Amino acid sequence: MENSISLYNTLTRKKENFEPLNPPHVGLYVCGPTVYGDAHLGHARPAITFDIVFRYFQHLDYKVRYVRNITDVGHLENDADEGEDKIAKKARLEQLEPMEIVQYYTNRYHKNMEQLNVLPPSIEPHASGHIIEQIDMIKKILTAGYAYEKNGSVYFDVVKYDKDHNYGKLSGRSIEEALENTRTLAGQAEKNNQVDFALWKKASPEHIMRWPSPWSDGFPGWHLECSVMGCKYLGETFDIHGGGMDLIFPHHESEIAQAVAANGKDHVRYWMHNNMITIDGQKMGKSLNNFITLDEFFSGSHQALSQAYSPITIRFFILQAHYRSTVDFSNDALVAAEKGMTRMLTAVETLAALEPSEKSTVDVNALRKKCYKAMSDDFNSPVVIAHLFDGVKMINSIKDGKEQITTADLEVLRKLYNDFVFDILGLRMETKEASGNDEVVDGLMELILDMRKQAKENKDWGTADKIRDGLKSIKIEVKDTREGAVWNTID
Amino acid sequence: MENSISLYNTLTRKKENFEPLNPPHVGLYVCGPTVYGDAHLGHARPAITFDIVFRYFQHLDYKVRYVRNITDVGHLENDADEGEDKIAKKARLEQLEPMEIVQYYTNRYHKNMEQLNVLPPSIEPHASGHIIEQIDMIKKILTAGYAYEKNGSVYFDVVKYDKDHNYGKLSGRSIEEALENTRTLAGQAEKNNQVDFALWKKASPEHIMRWPSPWSDGFPGWHLECSVMGCKYLGETFDIHGGGMDLIFPHHESEIAQAVAANGKDHVRYWMHNNMITIDGQKMGKSLNNFITLDEFFSGSHQALSQAYSPITIRFFILQAHYRSTVDFSNDALVAAEKGMTRMLTAVETLAALEPSEKSTVDVNALRKKCYKAMSDDFNSPVVIAHLFDGVKMINSIKDGKEQITTADLEVLRKLYNDFVFDILGLRMETKEASGNDEVVDGLMELILDMRKQAKENKDWGTADKIRDGLKSIKIEVKDTREGAVWNTID
Repeated sequence: MENSISLYNTLTRKKENFEPLNPPHVGLYVCGPTVYGDAHLGHARPAITFDIVFRYFQHLDYKVRYVRNITDVGHLENDADEGEDKIAKKARLEQLEPMEIVQYYTNRYHKNMEQLNVLPPSIEPHASGHIIEQIDMIKKILTAGYAYEKNGSVYFDVVKYDKDHNYGKLSGRSIEEALENTRTLAGQAEKNNQVDFALWKKASPEHIMRWPSPWSDGFPGWHLECSVMGCKYLGETFDIHGGGMDLIFPHHESEIAQAVAANGKDHVRYWMHNNMITIDGQKMGKSLNNFITLDEFFSGSHQALSQAYSPITIRFFILQAHYRSTVDFSNDALVAAEKGMTRMLTAVETLAALEPSEKSTVDVNALRKKCYKAMSDDFNSPVVIAHLFDGVKMINSIKDGKEQITTADLEVLRKLYNDFVFDILGLRMETKEASGNDEVVDGLMELILDMRKQAKENKDWGTADKIRDGLKSIKIEVKDTREGAVWNTID
Repeated sequence: MENSISLYNTLTRKKENFEPLNPPHVGLYVCGPTVYGDAHLGHARPAITFDIVFRYFQHLDYKVRYVRNITDVGHLENDADEGEDKIAKKARLEQLEPMEIVQYYTNRYHKNMEQLNVLPPSIEPHASGHIIEQIDMIKKILTAGYAYEKNGSVYFDVVKYDKDHNYGKLSGRSIEEALENTRTLAGQAEKNNQVDFALWKKASPEHIMRWPSPWSDGFPGWHLECSVMGCKYLGETFDIHGGGMDLIFPHHESEIAQAVAANGKDHVRYWMHNNMITIDGQKMGKSLNNFITLDEFFSGSHQALSQAYSPITIRFFILQAHYRSTVDFSNDALVAAEKGMTRMLTAVETLAALEPSEKSTVDVNALRKKCYKAMSDDFNSPVVIAHLFDGVKMINSIKDGKEQITTADLEVLRKLYNDFVFDILGLRMETKEASGNDEVVDGLMELILDMRKQAKENKDWGTADKIRDGLKSIKIEVKDTREGAVWNTID
């Protein structure tokens, strides 16, 4: 049961049982960032969504080759075929070589991903590093008759392709609809049809990023890199392609068209798309200028935030929604996510200290099954989290002596939380991460709270007060709750 | 004075005054790692050497574009033109796609560099990402008549080049000598002369890493990538090229020949080479199998090490020698480095707490001048460190009241240590780095020891024992001394 995953395939618009082409191998390609600015919440979502997919497949012992690209060339403003290259523009504004921009923001992106506990992909290819392969695919598409050259640029012939294949099968758009929605931009006159898109663009004299090709000194179209790098590292037909929903059209639709035109075979078996993060109902994005960068979340320096949020809180916040639902950002929602996550991680610590009994009054195997069932049901992280919270109640009841658990069941429960909380959902103990001394602090606090309890029982108020004041002086606050004394640091 | 740097130019075999081509810009290219294994001490040395160069130029307000490549293709076993590609071999042994190997070891290399506080370069280009540019340079060399094709491979014609230019001007080897020392390997028969080297190699059928070219499906020769990426990102002639001394011949010699043959102009103005790290007088290297990986140093897990050494200790150890001297590794030398570094960093803390006086009895400006003079004299880090240790004596004398310092001088001294210790030498406060919770631990221990004292005074042995046992369980040991109770962690 645990090995059967169903996932929603954008291509067929239904949940399907996942069957890998070459079990136990799984090929996964995800569209990565265009590196010309700091990563924001909108970047965190696909990264975390497919990190969960990567982690869960690995947990189930699949051998996953996960490819996530870096777009460092060819992505023009307006996401269309005209305008300036996003990276070259930034380089021009900052008087740097474009590759310095790429390096700078790639490094920062990697740092953010590490903070979010997003595992590095198996291969992270750069678009600019695969020009020769892109030229190669253009040649194949030209040979197959689905592209034409005009003045040193090469365009994909969408109209002709659509007659033989179905341009629009992923997005569900008809070519007529696509035609209507395509803006007419300067220089588009070269195209036979407005719906056609560039495979290779001749560089204007001032364009910095350029390479020789059989057609002109120029650069590849934005859609091309993903078809090329997917085929190169995962094969002409591979298992799963993921990305944000906003990429379905025209990016992914065009990726399919390019690969099918070049190779004459199906490209990707399962297409997975995460939904957007919205602010007041509007997509969050750099081009919309309503984004909050990840660093701003981590430092709390944006005006929409009442405090700093740890990377793992951001991760938990995103995982509280199913990846195919929108997430509407608000400060209140983040505050709630932080509370929920703390409750979950505290329970993991409680679990580590539980004492076993002769018999179990709780059903850990049922809980375990529910967690796997939810995760295998299209990676339903919010349902998994809900089950884990049911388990938190169970853990606290055992701690309070209201329920009992055997040694064997306790082992199952501990493994379950370790697997799901840390390995699959990719959360981590925050404070432990921040400093190697937390175990020492925890140990010392345990000792101190124990002495405080003793003092209170002995009605030794002097000692109890001394402890309280001593802790306060180093910014530690103790509260008595039904579950016993808990402590936290105060700012 | 501070802006005048002299550096030893391997090309002229003397120290020269450094004059940048386009002040205030400095172009710096350094040969980076071939990513097929974990980084060892031999990798740390060039990385740290040129990190110092990068940092010092920036400190002097030069605008440095620092390019350090990742070799991910074309580096064959034996560093020659035959044999298997080092990365492809590792991929074959581990049944992975070569680029998975590249990604894995690149990530690990980056982590090690961050631990060593080595700044990321401005651009870190991959050899495999510049195939098209390499093909382009081969075409230029062929056109210039300094290369020839044989059976789909292209070789550089060293003998012809040497007649027009001087092959050997960097290494000081005559072509006759080079000819004598070149091993005859299988398949070398294609070459007109044994001293010729491959620009492009036709791939054998089983060779995985291959690209189309006008000559064959194949791959570029190892020397080519650096000429190409240096020219691409720094210009056909640029300021400084660095690397390990072992790369002078044939790698750097061939880089010069390729660039000069292709562009018809001088390639690099200043060549800088760091010396080797030896173990028992032998070079430390992966191919010699006598290396200790950086992770082994950081964990102390290698049999040659008596303990773990922090990354900053390794950095300090390397900087204690001038980059053009050999460093002979020994455990004792590392122990001494650790002690020295601690003394230096403790003095920085002492310096922060010094109180100014009405007059100065110390000459901080003389010290400052000496530090800059040493650093500007071919980046003489050991002399800088010696001067900084003289300053440590000064600082401790001021602290002890034996010397005095004015507010203005104190400011100069603090800036000097901040600039040299942290910004230029790139050391950092380790303990603070390692854990942010030390203050909390100290505070908690103070409270606990106070309660222990109280309990003892009250002859409450139960509580005193409880404290002792509780601390012991988290590996903290308390001893009573004449000055009161002291504590330390036990392993």
